[in-house]
Amino acid sequence: MNRIDGRNYDELRPVKFTKNYTKQAQGSVLVEMGETRVICTAMIEEKVPPFLKNTGKGWITAEYSMLPSSTQTRKIRESSRGKVEGRTQEIQRLIGRALRSVVDLDSMGERTIWIDCDVIQADGGTRTASITGAFVALVEAVNLLMEKGTLQEFPIKSFVSAISVGIVDDKAVLDLCYEEDSKAKVDMNVVMTDKGEFIEVQGTGEEAPFSKKDLMELLTLAEKGNSELLALQKSILGEIADKVKSTADGVAEEKNEK
Amino acid sequence: MNRIDGRNYDELRPVKFTKNYTKQAQGSVLVEMGETRVICTAMIEEKVPPFLKNTGKGWITAEYSMLPSSTQTRKIRESSRGKVEGRTQEIQRLIGRALRSVVDLDSMGERTIWIDCDVIQADGGTRTASITGAFVALVEAVNLLMEKGTLQEFPIKSFVSAISVGIVDDKAVLDLCYEEDSKAKVDMNVVMTDKGEFIEVQGTGEEAPFSKKDLMELLTLAEKGNSELLALQKSILGEIADKVKSTADGVAEEKNEK
Amino acid sequence: MNRIDGRNYDELRPVKFTKNYTKQAQGSVLVEMGETRVICTAMIEEKVPPFLKNTGKGWITAEYSMLPSSTQTRKIRESSRGKVEGRTQEIQRLIGRALRSVVDLDSMGERTIWIDCDVIQADGGTRTASITGAFVALVEAVNLLMEKGTLQEFPIKSFVSAISVGIVDDKAVLDLCYEEDSKAKVDMNVVMTDKGEFIEVQGTGEEAPFSKKDLMELLTLAEKGNSELLALQKSILGEIADKVKSTADGVAEEKNEK
Amino acid sequence: MNRIDGRNYDELRPVKFTKNYTKQAQGSVLVEMGETRVICTAMIEEKVPPFLKNTGKGWITAEYSMLPSSTQTRKIRESSRGKVEGRTQEIQRLIGRALRSVVDLDSMGERTIWIDCDVIQADGGTRTASITGAFVALVEAVNLLMEKGTLQEFPIKSFVSAISVGIVDDKAVLDLCYEEDSKAKVDMNVVMTDKGEFIEVQGTGEEAPFSKKDLMELLTLAEKGNSELLALQKSILGEIADKVKSTADGVAEEKNEK
Amino acid sequence: MNRIDGRNYDELRPVKFTKNYTKQAQGSVLVEMGETRVICTAMIEEKVPPFLKNTGKGWITAEYSMLPSSTQTRKIRESSRGKVEGRTQEIQRLIGRALRSVVDLDSMGERTIWIDCDVIQADGGTRTASITGAFVALVEAVNLLMEKGTLQEFPIKSFVSAISVGIVDDKAVLDLCYEEDSKAKVDMNVVMTDKGEFIEVQGTGEEAPFSKKDLMELLTLAEKGNSELLALQKSILGEIADKVKSTADGVAEEKNEK
Amino acid sequence: MNRIDGRNYDELRPVKFTKNYTKQAQGSVLVEMGETRVICTAMIEEKVPPFLKNTGKGWITAEYSMLPSSTQTRKIRESSRGKVEGRTQEIQRLIGRALRSVVDLDSMGERTIWIDCDVIQADGGTRTASITGAFVALVEAVNLLMEKGTLQEFPIKSFVSAISVGIVDDKAVLDLCYEEDSKAKVDMNVVMTDKGEFIEVQGTGEEAPFSKKDLMELLTLAEKGNSELLALQKSILGEIADKVKSTADGVAEEKNEK
Repeated sequence: MNRIDGRNYDELRPVKFTKNYTKQAQGSVLVEMGETRVICTAMIEEKVPPFLKNTGKGWITAEYSMLPSSTQTRKIRESSRGKVEGRTQEIQRLIGRALRSVVDLDSMGERTIWIDCDVIQADGGTRTASITGAFVALVEAVNLLMEKGTLQEFPIKSFVSAISVGIVDDKAVLDLCYEEDSKAKVDMNVVMTDKGEFIEVQGTGEEAPFSKKDLMELLTLAEKGNSELLALQKSILGEIADKVKSTADGVAEEKNEK
Repeated sequence: MNRIDGRNYDELRPVKFTKNYTKQAQGSVLVEMGETRVICTAMIEEKVPPFLKNTGKGWITAEYSMLPSSTQTRKIRESSRGKVEGRTQEIQRLIGRALRSVVDLDSMGERTIWIDCDVIQADGGTRTASITGAFVALVEAVNLLMEKGTLQEFPIKSFVSAISVGIVDDKAVLDLCYEEDSKAKVDMNVVMTDKGEFIEVQGTGEEAPFSKKDLMELLTLAEKGNSELLALQKSILGEIADKVKSTADGVAEEKNEK
Repeated sequence: MNRIDGRNYDELRPVKFTKNYTKQAQGSVLVEMGETRVICTAMIEEKVPPFLKNTGKGWITAEYSMLPSSTQTRKIRESSRGKVEGRTQEIQRLIGRALRSVVDLDSMGERTIWIDCDVIQADGGTRTASITGAFVALVEAVNLLMEKGTLQEFPIKSFVSAISVGIVDDKAVLDLCYEEDSKAKVDMNVVMTDKGEFIEVQGTGEEAPFSKKDLMELLTLAEKGNSELLALQKSILGEIADKVKSTADGVAEEKNEK
Repeated sequence: MNRIDGRNYDELRPVKFTKNYTKQAQGSVLVEMGETRVICTAMIEEKVPPFLKNTGKGWITAEYSMLPSSTQTRKIRESSRGKVEGRTQEIQRLIGRALRSVVDLDSMGERTIWIDCDVIQADGGTRTASITGAFVALVEAVNLLMEKGTLQEFPIKSFVSAISVGIVDDKAVLDLCYEEDSKAKVDMNVVMTDKGEFIEVQGTGEEAPFSKKDLMELLTLAEKGNSELLALQKSILGEIADKVKSTADGVAEEKNEK
Repeated sequence: MNRIDGRNYDELRPVKFTKNYTKQAQGSVLVEMGETRVICTAMIEEKVPPFLKNTGKGWITAEYSMLPSSTQTRKIRESSRGKVEGRTQEIQRLIGRALRSVVDLDSMGERTIWIDCDVIQADGGTRTASITGAFVALVEAVNLLMEKGTLQEFPIKSFVSAISVGIVDDKAVLDLCYEEDSKAKVDMNVVMTDKGEFIEVQGTGEEAPFSKKDLMELLTLAEKGNSELLALQKSILGEIADKVKSTADGVAEEKNEK
Repeated sequence: MNRIDGRNYDELRPVKFTKNYTKQAQGSVLVEMGETRVICTAMIEEKVPPFLKNTGKGWITAEYSMLPSSTQTRKIRESSRGKVEGRTQEIQRLIGRALRSVVDLDSMGERTIWIDCDVIQADGGTRTASITGAFVALVEAVNLLMEKGTLQEFPIKSFVSAISVGIVDDKAVLDLCYEEDSKAKVDMNVVMTDKGEFIEVQGTGEEAPFSKKDLMELLTLAEKGNSELLALQKSILGEIADKVKSTADGVAEEKNEK
């Protein structure tokens, strides 16, 4: 089979992380997966939403947006419409959930980390690229809190990455570009940790239902893609990557003892 | 293990469908799953959204809402807030997608079927109950179009039902009530056809990642739950149920011939 | 004269109250007047709006909504429009005013009772049915506060009910159904106490002005209708009904002594 | 009894109409009732709302607003809040209904007359003053259409005026100023034609119910007030006033002949 | 050259200030410049926006609005649209900035003065007329605070007025009416103090760029217009005008001594 | 005098244009002025706003937005607030006006060019950088229409650039960075053509009025800054730059002949 861009069915598009992409945010990464480009930033705010006040716990929340010029037909700004679309809300809820699931919010202190994922060019897989890039920005922001001595313990327990998989022309493929995505019969986004566990599995067969066998194939592809992404995240984070690892082990051990 | 309400881990709550629950909609069903109660209606509008004009195709769209008094703490109306919450949008997109996936929109004619799912009492699983109930209302509305001679061919290809599964107290269970849902580590909604295929799989481990083995267990439970729900849908629909079946076979055969 | 549904000009449609219709609200009643069906609930919130803070007084506020499927042509949700219609606001202000007029807010403590009237099927007279049903839900919620010992004194001074009257085909009639309402020259809603007094009289002659004689006839019909509704409210409330009565007398006596 | 401003219980405040108050509108009147001052304008737009397209009928619609500086405590602009309050909507619906009830919309042609009532100083009775003033502006705008030959027949069938009455300190009084209004037990707005008929009767006993006898007294006061206002409207309109009268008689006669 | 209304190129339209135009605001002025008429009011609120809490500083903010009937084609209310237009926001930001620039906010105490400029008739130059009129209302409101003893020192340091100038038919002219404005190639608004200094210069050549020489000519005209407006403001304010003057000198002297 | 970043008082920050920054828009430029970075794109839509339908004329409109992470304190998204701020609207109106002023809309055909300026990092002067960068994107988009043969004549008559100037520490300086801007007594934005003419002059002395002499100094600085920016625009556009020039001369000659 030939994919549109010549890739193998189980091949990621070229992935690139540019750290410190802008200077104001505590963490800032440009993530590129093929032609998809997303600015992911993490900013620290020293307060929490009302429902967490006086609990000592922290919070992570995410916003996602596409620049009007990121798509082939200009996308109307949500600020001009006066409301945030359902799709956008779904994506920002997903990003927030994915990141919170690997952070020990109890040890983060009463602060919020705001994740912003702004798509400057869209070619499929913007939500999964956002999660993958946002994780790197988050680690950097948290590391800053460690370096300043604000935090004593690294609160991130695992790595997180995400990838899309789908069935295109009756074939399961990894990391769909826009053209593939628009003709996929089944579309699935899979968020995973570096321990090979799942955080989120969202599979949709809008045009056609799919079998359990299809599901298994897609999950296997997603596992491959995510393990590659995790390696790249570790590489770009360098020494900081180890902080995530060791803390996570600590947590795991603690759990075993109970 | 003892579940809160004494059920077995793989047992559905009592399910009840009341057809013709209100008189204005073309299809109208009150679905009850334990204490969860949702009014599901299907109304036919003889026009389609702009993107389908002059295509000859039909459309199905869904809205979901909870009455303020459906929850223990009064839920503020979205009309008072002036905006629809992200969660609501996510659910109505899910319901719409699930129903559209089994309908041959090409043979529906240029009309929209509006699905409304209004929760009058919430005790967990409102989105899956909505899908299960809405399917019955949809079949009834479509059947009315057949009886009037507006449609010549039954455009619904398969049955659709949905159920929630999750990991509660380290145990996979079927059909979570609110109390179980609020302490579940993993929560999954599974939408299926009567052919045992998946339309939508949405699993989330907000508090803890889950393994592939967990995923398999949950899917098996969901298969059991959905097959029971499908039997109940068929029973409540009586003769009309056969129309779905035979048409679906027709479609299947047609596909095989290609 | 023959009315559409065969009723006499001064005859109510069949009225039915179903108490404890849902389980989350402190008071919950399904009221039916012919084909018109409204879920009326009363929920207690232990705080008051800003203008009553630290006054020791309580508050009662009402919201009204029609399900999209309650009308023959699907009604667009106000949450989708992003704003609450004028008609809705007028009705919820009317319901709130009517109920507050018979409650001693001073002795209610700093709490709000939220009244929700959700129309699940509309066939004329939804606002008056809402008032009549909401009163029953309100009494139940207040009674719960009495039983818990939160309130020492029953703060409801009178019964309240409401009915529509109008001039249809040049004839004054009681309790208009939708078809009558849509061709009425004059339309009037009358809210009354069980002492035969008026709380609200709203008469409109949009298509034709009306004479004082017309007004008198309509009021007489409304008095008849309300007295029947009040009897039904008392009957459904059973023993609790007496609490309203005796307290009201207490208030009356107290007033006379001044 | 002494009223705050020394008036008799059945006495209107000084009433003043200033015609041609601004130059852009086709009809423009400043109406003053004591300290209450409202700019009432009528502007003609050569199109109708969607529901009247191609029916040959015209429409009259009204908007009402209070300047922020019209009240003692600055009133927040509804444009700043982003939504129109319930009270405002209730009032503009009332004004629109009142004016439409005396106009033969069939003979107005497919055009809309926009009525704007902008309160520049508020001292009670702004909604009734708005109706009384708006009627004069409406007649002027319609007269312009007659003079231009756009209309052949004067479509206004009756005069309309409105006044508030209420029970203050246990006494029925006419034309309440703000201070009276804020302590009134019963408050009623009565819209009438020059034939002594009622268009709208809205009586509210928010703080205390009222008897039929109270209602009768209030209506009698309202009849007196409205007949005085009608005389003033006729006087300010001069010759044009006769056009309303004669047409109205024509309609009346025509009716008798049937 | 002949201007539309016969004025000389450097001639203002007739200017008129009516003080105490309405009674509720602490300062209230009707300003008329030819056919342009604006109600300008100043209302004192004893609190400040969040960013000034506990700073001891005061604030001045402005809102601007046009009545629907102020323009030839009825202007839709911004409250009906649900949002404030860009043009309106630009104008109210300009008015607020202009007034704040001459007030010593530090000595105003923690209170806000709300300026409202409501255009009741528009014939060009509404934003500059608003500034010129609002200044008079502001002085009156501040003077009231002085008379009550709330303020010890007059916090207004200079007079402020504003005028429009533009290039119409290749000729620089002062104080454009609507017809001139709509065909002007260059349009400039100039806000000045009574010391001949500029507070705001906003020149726009939407249809054609302009040269530095054009700019100089326009500024000279604006200086003439503003000096005339300042004289009129002083005259209408009478004795209060001196308070502005002397304080301003005090500030000036104080500055020199530093 | 020493400026914060060591620049001379009349020195621009390093300016950099990156063409073809993203691939979906017809014109796409990343403009950097020091630390300020703005993505400017031009997208062509083959329709015009309602007021231009069937006029044969084209339109240019601009939107401006700041990424939440572009500022030191995270900026709340306008889509989350549900409304576009006044400042944003002011800026996008300014950008649109500036670009339209040099384009012959009559010869553009019935199409709209959407300009989007998205600030990814803000350090003062974002609105002027937006204009300068947007002009380059606009030229590229228009050039594409020329190359495709859609347009026969190059409709852009002049170059446009913009720069900020201000008085900081009593000294007039060119191209203020954020820190300078926040302490400037006078702030001015000047938009100019390559013929040395002004399109927009907006000077504000919020904290202190300014003299005519100050104004002159600031304009001289702005002229220097803009002439440098224009040279850079020409250089980055290369050969296309000549198309603007020659056409412009054509227009100028044509004008002279009249």
